[in-house]
Amino acid sequence: MATTTYTVSGMTCGHCVNAVTEELSQLDGVTDVRVDLASGAVTVTSAAPLDDTAVAAAVDEAGYQLVS
Amino acid sequence: MATTTYTVSGMTCGHCVNAVTEELSQLDGVTDVRVDLASGAVTVTSAAPLDDTAVAAAVDEAGYQLVS
Repeated sequence: MATTTYTVSGMTCGHCVNAVTEELSQLDGVTDVRVDLASGAVTVTSAAPLDDTAVAAAVDEAGYQLVS
Repeated sequence: MATTTYTVSGMTCGHCVNAVTEELSQLDGVTDVRVDLASGAVTVTSAAPLDDTAVAAAVDEAGYQLVS
């Protein structure tokens, strides 16, 4: 089990949170996604460590940007 | 044909615009909804003048507030 917290910019409302959550939840092995809208912190729990490129691509697909 | 411009507060992103557009489009007689996110201006075209209470209810249903 791996838990990593990323920072995502551009989320402004609950719809944005849902869009990011949905995209990240589709990544292989992801079991939980928690988003703090105010800080942009996105905590992802997965069966194995995730590939940063895949995470960045999923965030981009949702329409936002992975900052770190 | 009636065209009225309302002001809606709380919209922050394209998802918010879609939510408001969808709710207002469902009102009887509405043929067009245009939202300017930056100003909150929502212009609704309808076959007959709309009831302000129905418009306010639709905006509220979408999760936002009719200011004027």
